Amino acid sequence: MQLVIYLGIPAVVCVVGLLIARFFAHDIMKQDVGTQRMKEISGFIRSGAMTFMLEEARAIVVVLVVVAAILWLLWSWEVGVSFVIGAFCSGLAGFIGMNMATNANVRTTQAAKKGSSPALRVAFSGGAVMGLAVGSLALLGLCAVIWLFKSYFQPASICIEDVEVPFVSSFLGRNINFIKAAVIVSAYSMGASLVALFDRVGGGIYTKAADMAADLVGKVEVNIPEDDPRNPAVIADNVGDNVGDVGGLGADLLESFVGAIIAVIVILLYAFVGRHNLDICRNLLSKLGISDFNAANFWPIILLPLMIVAGGIVSSLIGILYVRLSKNENIQRTLMNGTKLSALLTGIATFFIVRYGSPFNLVPFWAVLVGIAAGVLIGIISEYFTSSRFKPVQKLAESCQQGAGVSIARGLALGMESCFWPVIVIAVATIVSHHLGGLAAVTYTALGMLSFVVMTVSVDTYGPIADNAGGIAQMANLDNSVRKVTDNLDAIGNTTAAIGKGFAIGSAAFAALGLIAAYIWSSVGEAAEVNLPVVYLISPQVGAYVIAGLMLGAMVPYVFSSLLVSSVADTAHAMINEIRKQFKEKPGILEGKELPDYNRCISIASTKSLKRMVMPAFIALFSPLIIGFVLGRSVLVGFLIGALLSAIHLAIQCANTGGALDNAKKYIEEGNFGGKGSQAHAAGVIGDTFGDPLKDTVGPSLDILIKLMSVISLLFASLFPICPIFFK
Amino acid sequence: MQLVIYLGIPAVVCVVGLLIARFFAHDIMKQDVGTQRMKEISGFIRSGAMTFMLEEARAIVVVLVVVAAILWLLWSWEVGVSFVIGAFCSGLAGFIGMNMATNANVRTTQAAKKGSSPALRVAFSGGAVMGLAVGSLALLGLCAVIWLFKSYFQPASICIEDVEVPFVSSFLGRNINFIKAAVIVSAYSMGASLVALFDRVGGGIYTKAADMAADLVGKVEVNIPEDDPRNPAVIADNVGDNVGDVGGLGADLLESFVGAIIAVIVILLYAFVGRHNLDICRNLLSKLGISDFNAANFWPIILLPLMIVAGGIVSSLIGILYVRLSKNENIQRTLMNGTKLSALLTGIATFFIVRYGSPFNLVPFWAVLVGIAAGVLIGIISEYFTSSRFKPVQKLAESCQQGAGVSIARGLALGMESCFWPVIVIAVATIVSHHLGGLAAVTYTALGMLSFVVMTVSVDTYGPIADNAGGIAQMANLDNSVRKVTDNLDAIGNTTAAIGKGFAIGSAAFAALGLIAAYIWSSVGEAAEVNLPVVYLISPQVGAYVIAGLMLGAMVPYVFSSLLVSSVADTAHAMINEIRKQFKEKPGILEGKELPDYNRCISIASTKSLKRMVMPAFIALFSPLIIGFVLGRSVLVGFLIGALLSAIHLAIQCANTGGALDNAKKYIEEGNFGGKGSQAHAAGVIGDTFGDPLKDTVGPSLDILIKLMSVISLLFASLFPICPIFFK
Repeated sequence: MQLVIYLGIPAVVCVVGLLIARFFAHDIMKQDVGTQRMKEISGFIRSGAMTFMLEEARAIVVVLVVVAAILWLLWSWEVGVSFVIGAFCSGLAGFIGMNMATNANVRTTQAAKKGSSPALRVAFSGGAVMGLAVGSLALLGLCAVIWLFKSYFQPASICIEDVEVPFVSSFLGRNINFIKAAVIVSAYSMGASLVALFDRVGGGIYTKAADMAADLVGKVEVNIPEDDPRNPAVIADNVGDNVGDVGGLGADLLESFVGAIIAVIVILLYAFVGRHNLDICRNLLSKLGISDFNAANFWPIILLPLMIVAGGIVSSLIGILYVRLSKNENIQRTLMNGTKLSALLTGIATFFIVRYGSPFNLVPFWAVLVGIAAGVLIGIISEYFTSSRFKPVQKLAESCQQGAGVSIARGLALGMESCFWPVIVIAVATIVSHHLGGLAAVTYTALGMLSFVVMTVSVDTYGPIADNAGGIAQMANLDNSVRKVTDNLDAIGNTTAAIGKGFAIGSAAFAALGLIAAYIWSSVGEAAEVNLPVVYLISPQVGAYVIAGLMLGAMVPYVFSSLLVSSVADTAHAMINEIRKQFKEKPGILEGKELPDYNRCISIASTKSLKRMVMPAFIALFSPLIIGFVLGRSVLVGFLIGALLSAIHLAIQCANTGGALDNAKKYIEEGNFGGKGSQAHAAGVIGDTFGDPLKDTVGPSLDILIKLMSVISLLFASLFPICPIFFK
Repeated sequence: MQLVIYLGIPAVVCVVGLLIARFFAHDIMKQDVGTQRMKEISGFIRSGAMTFMLEEARAIVVVLVVVAAILWLLWSWEVGVSFVIGAFCSGLAGFIGMNMATNANVRTTQAAKKGSSPALRVAFSGGAVMGLAVGSLALLGLCAVIWLFKSYFQPASICIEDVEVPFVSSFLGRNINFIKAAVIVSAYSMGASLVALFDRVGGGIYTKAADMAADLVGKVEVNIPEDDPRNPAVIADNVGDNVGDVGGLGADLLESFVGAIIAVIVILLYAFVGRHNLDICRNLLSKLGISDFNAANFWPIILLPLMIVAGGIVSSLIGILYVRLSKNENIQRTLMNGTKLSALLTGIATFFIVRYGSPFNLVPFWAVLVGIAAGVLIGIISEYFTSSRFKPVQKLAESCQQGAGVSIARGLALGMESCFWPVIVIAVATIVSHHLGGLAAVTYTALGMLSFVVMTVSVDTYGPIADNAGGIAQMANLDNSVRKVTDNLDAIGNTTAAIGKGFAIGSAAFAALGLIAAYIWSSVGEAAEVNLPVVYLISPQVGAYVIAGLMLGAMVPYVFSSLLVSSVADTAHAMINEIRKQFKEKPGILEGKELPDYNRCISIASTKSLKRMVMPAFIALFSPLIIGFVLGRSVLVGFLIGALLSAIHLAIQCANTGGALDNAKKYIEEGNFGGKGSQAHAAGVIGDTFGDPLKDTVGPSLDILIKLMSVISLLFASLFPICPIFFK
């Protein structure tokens, strides 16, 4: 009965969420698509996006089948099925979101003819469809998996009354079941991660290669403006916005969301397993206010995170409705207020859920609150470093007067400097939540950060839709007034994107930390063989190997980033050659008499970006396995944490360096330091070319890297040896 | 008697080394200085370098007195004195080296009139003086400190025969003495570190600000060639080469050298102290083949590292003589052969010293060998990524055709990619040496890497002398044939500099690792209270705090680097304004009729660069203290390792990104991809401006940062609380 309630309520919330998304979608599709030309252009973008999605889907299915088969062989069919469901939910959410975004863009353009508010309504509704799809499908899939395989979550067997010995023995008998339950939910998370890898890395390469190619030839060589229909890469560029910023971001946050939820579940499952040291398990649960173990409180304990995020979905829905119904002309404020409202309501909902719907004390609530606060703070910090309203970007723009060499160096310095506060926030949140309630509280903090994910995805997806809408207005040669409205929406979208990017990094870091904590709890306790969960940094048993693991782990994000930058540059290079060829072969294109062949560029971008993600994917998938099998579980902890450390810093640095250089250029274009055409502007353009792949490909992909490596480790943990294989 | 032998032999070697340096110096001073104009120019450079050294010395003395007083108050006068001796030796070595380099440069120019070989002889002799000064003074000072305070290294008290209890009790009584001995040698190392901080960070800002300013105005704005005497910043630029590349590099390697030696001594001292868990100490020593403790083997055990590096000095001397006497026209090969010879001889000497001069088994020898191999390998890898003879730089130069934005992004990617092999080498060396003989072996590996430091410094210092010689030839309008000879010497200098930079990073990483190992051994064992030296990464006692420590530590190098880049850019900006002012006020300068005011530029560079190092110095000095006092010793381990991880990667990335961009530009200048004046060349110049502060300021300064933070932690360890202060 409890199971029905604790799975049923979240499931109902998800279904309601999906119905509302359906309503929004219906509402959008009713809107006018405008002129024939607009329809045509948006058709190009849609079909380009579909081309990429189909090619990607084909690649994903192959990998999916292989991985599912491996999981089946290693464990059982249930694990494989859970993995496939996770991948399917993530893929479906991405498809719904992209489909909606490519319909909403042209309708936003059309609505912009009537003013800002109607345009915002359409664009934001498009975003909300994606947001609701992400949150609801991810949660619904997880509910389904737990329901399907509920026999492995055996509540009956934990009905223990008092003494220790029977407790332990009754558990040791259940060990395998519980471990399997943990593996099943981990596999679900890994399915979502795998799709995210394709969406974020492949999409990231696609979007920036297209952007770079379109700019380098269009703006620099033949001197035509952004989004000019004569540019053969212009459609690919607009497709890229959808592929990278809608599909990629959605999949990224969906992955964080699932990771954060399952980290809590796995830690609690293992606390119930009991393992070697009962006291430590008791200790973990007692910090959360649980002193007696019995069947009556099993499901409420294990499934609390589902209830909390269901509360987050409802709160986000209210925030979405607020934004849609708001008549406030200050769009930026409306969006911010909506986000704050969702965060606040999530906090309140969590309080009631924890207080009245769980056997816990208030520690999970406080931990969630810490997570929410940290998420909001990190977003605000990102904005400070990347918005031209603040000093850092203004000073960066000023330094463009000294040439691109100096300004890029300063841009890099700005990105490095901007690591300071977010890392302090993450470190303090970790310390505070651990102080509150141990490792389990740390996972709850991660959950808190992700709990209102529906709202963040909605706001983040609004940006690229507005961006596309502006592109369509330009390409369809609409009136300047329309372009002005879409430009304004786009500018706000840039701000929300900066905040969203910071948030995505912070939440990825926390989700990874949660997964690592779960991994430590689930596996490495055995290694210590004394006190679970104790992990040695250096010890007679594992020596300085953990330090070596930290070093190797810290190196991975650097190599991974390097591959991505090269991939973007190479793909852009191939596209540039194609564009030049088209201009040469059909001189009519530049005169506006002939249509360029958009599809050639789209196809190059799709094929190349998928091909170039093989190596990064290989690293993400196999490096933890190699370390795990060769150097063992303890060293793998070091490896994961080392990777986390580098990835956090590189991701923040890349996002903020790129964002600041981009906005410094725009600040100059607004007429500062000489404006367009000045020497400072030339430096700004070079800086932007440099920064773009960092902020839109490297930074976001690093989010995926650490989560994927962590979840793989969690999944395969029990197969790894405890000590290095060459250890005597 | 043993003490006399084990301190006497190294001391005699040092004295011989210094005498030979004196002979070289005498030999250089006998050489002809050439024309009046050459004399004049070299006089300018000399007096500019002296100006900086004096200003710096004044700042150092103030800090020195304060820190020495604090050390005196916290411990005793002995600690303060040891600190001052360390600082004095480092400062003296720097002074001798800079003095020699600024005398050798002009004489190299003059010798170049006679051909490559004589010029190499002079330049390399100048480098050898620095190399010998660094090695001999550092070791001599340490011998003096140990001799002076030998009463704290009580051999008599460790005369134990058999059972455990008397052993422990006799040691517990000696604890304080032994800890003091460890503190005294640590203070010596910290003295050297402090001077290195000023030389490397201040010098790094100076050299790149001057370079940037001279280039940005000279080459870009008024279009005069490099090293043109009409440029008011030209002397400051040449002074910078001495300040940064001679003084800075020497102090850096001296610090690594001292750090590596004292790490071994401290670990062994603490093994003798016995602390809480005798078995672990026994275990450490037994891995090195020591089974019985008695007065007879105390000094040979503790002072073995001094003997090994004395062997390294003798081996380096032979290598130096080989280079000086070689008649081979292929200078590059001569230098490489000399270095390899020194490394080989050091290995052989170590074998005999360990085998016949110590009570150890051969583990220290193998560990040293691993270190030597790792050092040589890292150097070779650096060369591969930064020399235009290899693919990476050639491809980078090719990408310059696509503009500076793309090429800088690719340069950054190259730097990131180049982390792979060096980190693998460091990690494998750590694992292998630990496998051989535990933590003590890890410190021996660090020692091995630094053992032939005299030769590496000699080769590295040769580069900037040749560079200066070329500058003097240009400024004095000497014949093209002279310039050609110096250009050739300079090109080889660039290669050796790249190798040297890679080596400096690798050795700094290992020296820091050695110091951290010593810190862990000396202090954190107490925290675990069970098995010394066990350090928890995550545990019920310290929770996830160590992970928070890792995050905070990993963040420091980013913020530190950011400050340095800004400092260089700001200082360059101030100099640019001065140069422009001079050109405006005295139009005769550009026509060659008036002399520019070189001193104004020199004074701006000196003052600003010293002022702008306050903040980085503050971070390096105080961040470990803050973490130590607030979060305790265990978290500080995490903090140090986190900083080490980031610093290794950032330093490698910065060095190789900068080096590759520099050489890509030069490769284009040689006529590839359009040669000088082409679009690719313009992109190459921008890339070089971007990369220069990374490779010559940020990268090297990070070496200092990690060593300084580690040695401070080691020194203050016993004052920190064990757990976070808010821990209940």
